[in-house]
Amino acid sequence: MTNASDDFNNNSKKIISIIGCGLIGQAWAVVFLRAGFNVKIYDKKRKITEHAKLGIEDKIKELGSFGLVNQHLIAEMMLNLTLENGLEDALRGSCYVQECGPEDLEIKSKLTAAIDEYTDEGVPIGSSTSGIPASSYAAEAKGRNRCLVVHPINPPHLIPAVEIVPSQWTDKSVLETASKIMFASGQTPIVLEKEIEGFILNRLQGALLTEAFQLLADGVASYEDIDKAVTDGLGFRWSLMGPFESIHLNAPLGVAQYIERYGPMYRKMFSNTGDKTDWSLALEKGLEESLVKKHPISNLDKSCKDRDQKMMLSLVQKQKGRLN
Amino acid sequence: MTNASDDFNNNSKKIISIIGCGLIGQAWAVVFLRAGFNVKIYDKKRKITEHAKLGIEDKIKELGSFGLVNQHLIAEMMLNLTLENGLEDALRGSCYVQECGPEDLEIKSKLTAAIDEYTDEGVPIGSSTSGIPASSYAAEAKGRNRCLVVHPINPPHLIPAVEIVPSQWTDKSVLETASKIMFASGQTPIVLEKEIEGFILNRLQGALLTEAFQLLADGVASYEDIDKAVTDGLGFRWSLMGPFESIHLNAPLGVAQYIERYGPMYRKMFSNTGDKTDWSLALEKGLEESLVKKHPISNLDKSCKDRDQKMMLSLVQKQKGRLN
Repeated sequence: MTNASDDFNNNSKKIISIIGCGLIGQAWAVVFLRAGFNVKIYDKKRKITEHAKLGIEDKIKELGSFGLVNQHLIAEMMLNLTLENGLEDALRGSCYVQECGPEDLEIKSKLTAAIDEYTDEGVPIGSSTSGIPASSYAAEAKGRNRCLVVHPINPPHLIPAVEIVPSQWTDKSVLETASKIMFASGQTPIVLEKEIEGFILNRLQGALLTEAFQLLADGVASYEDIDKAVTDGLGFRWSLMGPFESIHLNAPLGVAQYIERYGPMYRKMFSNTGDKTDWSLALEKGLEESLVKKHPISNLDKSCKDRDQKMMLSLVQKQKGRLN
Repeated sequence: MTNASDDFNNNSKKIISIIGCGLIGQAWAVVFLRAGFNVKIYDKKRKITEHAKLGIEDKIKELGSFGLVNQHLIAEMMLNLTLENGLEDALRGSCYVQECGPEDLEIKSKLTAAIDEYTDEGVPIGSSTSGIPASSYAAEAKGRNRCLVVHPINPPHLIPAVEIVPSQWTDKSVLETASKIMFASGQTPIVLEKEIEGFILNRLQGALLTEAFQLLADGVASYEDIDKAVTDGLGFRWSLMGPFESIHLNAPLGVAQYIERYGPMYRKMFSNTGDKTDWSLALEKGLEESLVKKHPISNLDKSCKDRDQKMMLSLVQKQKGRLN
């Protein structure tokens, strides 16, 4: 039974179970071992689990060689890893389950039901699925109230963002516990209010990719130049400041003025796609108030200066990285 | 007259003219001064030009304080900056003109015609416009063959990507010279094959923003969580590797397999927008061949390892940045 008030600051006696030991399962094991958890891994074939152990050790050692985990703790982390031969053993005493099975509705439904049977009450069962919502694979599970999607970006031990997607049945306490475990493991939990096809990471990625593919198909630019437009432009900016904060700082009077000034340009751009480009709807939902709370209009000059300093620091680090 | 074979490695005797001294004009001045050019700036009012000089000096000093320009060269850079009182003087002897006037078709057309009149033959006239194509503002200019869009991301002295957009009249030599000047100034030129509404930087940004606004309007996630999904997820990855390279490395058999595996998921996601999501068109245009040239399928494991190492290096630099 998981205690919802636990903040997972000391994890030396806690167990996390990983079911499915492909690349994502391995990377998750690294995430939790790094945070001090005991990790039990299980896959249908012992050979896969053994292979996974080697992959996990490789990844931890590599992190160690970059100074991203303490070299002296690597041996202990590997001792905290247990290879299990049965699903029931793999789930016993666990405070959180990360399911990393195949992307197949039928397989995932059966696997979830089996996991649900052997896992202690109230313990969240998170799925790494990138596209199947819990409302479909967990519909028949007795414990569907503790099933939810916990979808990472590949590879999760190197990219912090992880989206947490409840179904209509997911208990609030389960959502909170999963978020806390992610936060305590150095991840950045992104909590969705409800399910949506593709969740949000792949929807945002898919929107940009769709445009990129179209530009390529229309012969507007080469793939290399489109990639460079992102790495040396948009991606560089977005790695330091999200899309909403970015535009709030790109008009003297903030986001509302940005939409007023550039809205027509964006609408014209996408006029032939039938896309919904009336961004002002979001303003009605309080976007401006929230952004202004973080960056008051009277202080936008200072916010821009801070942004520029962040960028300069990042440029310095980039240059150092290149020289090493 | 510009010599197209010049690679702009030694710029101490070359002049670049900046017409319009708002924030973008100031940042461009920093870009060119940093690269060793002489820079002449001009705006309609002397007061604006004088104010711009202070802004330029501030920005260069700030770069100096981060070690991004050599402190000992700052005085010289500022000596290389000339404030001009007339357009004709501002353009005399220049090898490149960066026009930073207002985003207004009529004003830009008149300004371009005037710049064209006073600028030496063959010298490229680049406009910083984010949305007005050269085919419209330069249509009536005698020298429309040397007019083109050179659109930066704000702020250009900190973000390298700059898109170069020729009109149907732009000479190839002009396009090449403009690209070389950008490259020599530390920017990353992205050369479009033809004009398109919004060019490519804002189309890519707009596609992601449109999806982000929609998610917000639909109450799927908060603006803070959407921003975090980008900074700690997609943006972090995209700052190191563009969208096409990213997906090529996210399926064991590369981009074609990625499209086969995930294409249906993305199509389902955007099925209600009428969007064109048949990514396989791009494959017919040689995307796979190009990506395989850079990352052969037989070597994808190694490419993923290289990607992970880049990420680890970036994580290390991020942590150091935070500690400073």
